[in-house]
Amino acid sequence: MRIFIAGIDGYLGWPLAQYLAARGHIVAGCDRFLRRQWVEEVGSHSALPIHEMPERMEAFREHFGQNLIFREGDLLDYDFLKGFLNEFRPDAIVHLAEMPSAPYSMMDQAHTVFTQQNNVIGNLNILWAMREVCPKAHLVKLGTMGEYGTPNIDIPEGFFEVEYRGRKDYLPFPRQAGSFYHWSKVHDSNNTMFACKIWGLRATDIMQGVVFGTQIDEMGNDQRLRSRLDFDQCFGTAVNRFCCQAVIGHPLTLYGRGGQTRGFLPMRDSMQCLAITVENPPQSGEYRVFNQFEECYTIEELAELVRQTGDDTGIEVKIQHYDNPRREAEEHYFNPDRNRLIQLGYQPTHDVRAELRIMLTDILPHRGRILQKRDILIPDIRWDGTRRRSETMFVTATES
Amino acid sequence: MRIFIAGIDGYLGWPLAQYLAARGHIVAGCDRFLRRQWVEEVGSHSALPIHEMPERMEAFREHFGQNLIFREGDLLDYDFLKGFLNEFRPDAIVHLAEMPSAPYSMMDQAHTVFTQQNNVIGNLNILWAMREVCPKAHLVKLGTMGEYGTPNIDIPEGFFEVEYRGRKDYLPFPRQAGSFYHWSKVHDSNNTMFACKIWGLRATDIMQGVVFGTQIDEMGNDQRLRSRLDFDQCFGTAVNRFCCQAVIGHPLTLYGRGGQTRGFLPMRDSMQCLAITVENPPQSGEYRVFNQFEECYTIEELAELVRQTGDDTGIEVKIQHYDNPRREAEEHYFNPDRNRLIQLGYQPTHDVRAELRIMLTDILPHRGRILQKRDILIPDIRWDGTRRRSETMFVTATES
Repeated sequence: MRIFIAGIDGYLGWPLAQYLAARGHIVAGCDRFLRRQWVEEVGSHSALPIHEMPERMEAFREHFGQNLIFREGDLLDYDFLKGFLNEFRPDAIVHLAEMPSAPYSMMDQAHTVFTQQNNVIGNLNILWAMREVCPKAHLVKLGTMGEYGTPNIDIPEGFFEVEYRGRKDYLPFPRQAGSFYHWSKVHDSNNTMFACKIWGLRATDIMQGVVFGTQIDEMGNDQRLRSRLDFDQCFGTAVNRFCCQAVIGHPLTLYGRGGQTRGFLPMRDSMQCLAITVENPPQSGEYRVFNQFEECYTIEELAELVRQTGDDTGIEVKIQHYDNPRREAEEHYFNPDRNRLIQLGYQPTHDVRAELRIMLTDILPHRGRILQKRDILIPDIRWDGTRRRSETMFVTATES
Repeated sequence: MRIFIAGIDGYLGWPLAQYLAARGHIVAGCDRFLRRQWVEEVGSHSALPIHEMPERMEAFREHFGQNLIFREGDLLDYDFLKGFLNEFRPDAIVHLAEMPSAPYSMMDQAHTVFTQQNNVIGNLNILWAMREVCPKAHLVKLGTMGEYGTPNIDIPEGFFEVEYRGRKDYLPFPRQAGSFYHWSKVHDSNNTMFACKIWGLRATDIMQGVVFGTQIDEMGNDQRLRSRLDFDQCFGTAVNRFCCQAVIGHPLTLYGRGGQTRGFLPMRDSMQCLAITVENPPQSGEYRVFNQFEECYTIEELAELVRQTGDDTGIEVKIQHYDNPRREAEEHYFNPDRNRLIQLGYQPTHDVRAELRIMLTDILPHRGRILQKRDILIPDIRWDGTRRRSETMFVTATES
């Protein structure tokens, strides 16, 4: 298949290009390298050194026997996007080109506006460009499990049967996102659902859990194929951040008691799921939603898993609880469905400790890069619109 | 109270300024006069002649004994908005400054993007400005009944009790909007709900039906106080458009069979409801939703009412059905609640024929203005993204 990846330079976009190429697909993509800028803006850099796109493309050609069709450009530039799609004529478009950080979106007025403008308009441009140049292509759009929030009922995959005052309907499941970033993803989901209805486009909307990991098999030992790994408060998501903190002996930064439950998945599972999705397109006019995660954990459970894995590897890890800068329930019901990808053949890894061991091993040689930025490890972007460093609450004693 | 109206030059903003001033409130507002430009862009103008803002302000001062505090400016200009609010210090902000047309938003990529950018970012700027300069003010935000779409179950006011797989929660009612414009309003509702939750803002989100009418009592006979009245396919909503077509002897343009049911209300009811809302603010942190309409009718019923009223007034009216340029169900269940405003004292007019008679009388002297633009009366903006004039289907015979 001919697959277009928007955001191909990113944490997931870059490994996905490789994963799909290794499966025999023809890959094209665009990026404006904004992720590199945003991470620099918040005072950090990738824990693992990453290469520039020309070197990445060279490695890609050597390993996968095809030229990566790449152009630098922005989804907000409609003519660029439409022109590229018109030339490449994709069978599928994987949209990974959004600003993906909740804290970044909550920083101030300018960052809220940037986030929603970038994400909503970029996605609208993809929808219109598909309608105009490739209406039969399959859009694989990345949403997030965070769109659902934490309702007190089970979370289906996108839609549910409702009975209300004696009548029934099958309706979109209510969304209760927890940041302006997460809401931008809800807006995109709604716009995408509507475009499928009126234009007969086909789309799969992936409500993805939190991804962690440093590699997939396709990367081999070539550093040029490695993906970025962030550990700052904005772009460093829970497990990745913990692993980076662990290798420099910094206590893991847990927000509140860490009782929040979320769906997680290793990078290799994310790749597997996305490939399965791309290779099994929906019907024309169909908008389907997949919940994509390997398992649900509390943040504290994952921190504890990192601690134990550190222990196995000879790294002593402490867990430090901070007052939570976010506005979120610390204990709540959370029972999302995850059937559709399994039905299509997804086989969850089910070995988080093995994955964590690989991560610590991969990061350890680069601890110097994390140490350089150790002053940005404590969160200070608060959901009430202020900036203040979270204060320490208590330490979970190591029990080695 | 000190009340700020964003979009004070518009169809509802201008009468609202008068209605609130007559009730003793202090009124300020901003506008960038975009509505005037959009209507010109689609080849039309207001059926009733309207005056420029300086003349409007002069009349306002003469009739209501206060200077209207007005500044020209755009909600997308955050510094302008924040500065104005900081000086005026409102108790309430009524947000009427959105691009309000479904067909305009469906025209092409540029108009979809403009609509969502203008509406979503303008509303985000209001939320941030409130947080920064007047967090205790009450936001009265105009949504639309169209956010709900036409589900097969009753429509509550914003939220509903859900039972699903044996567990219960109280959740936002699922939205199924029918245009990119209507979706922009859903996005705004979601962002507003979230801002109330995290920042303790207070907001009333008005899911308003289709407003019709040419005057409120406060306008008296001063032409400078009259509001605009549109009849083009984009900004001319059902009843207003029908009345303008009736007075020039053009058949009323009904889309499809006209079986679509919607909530409607006369302009004087809209003013009454908005004043009641402003004068009864919610608690800090509360986000409440009011469904605001006088009664539900099918579009065909309203066309028939216009026909009959024309008959009474000596105007012969035909009803012409056109193939529907929109994508919408022509027959559907529609049973929205409308309790909260009634509980606060809203007294619905319940005399649509009297209102229609006033409208025809008001419009008749200006039939020349409508005749000038008679070539734009047939819709050509289609929901499939193309432009093609709707074709005639059948005429409902006049039975006078």
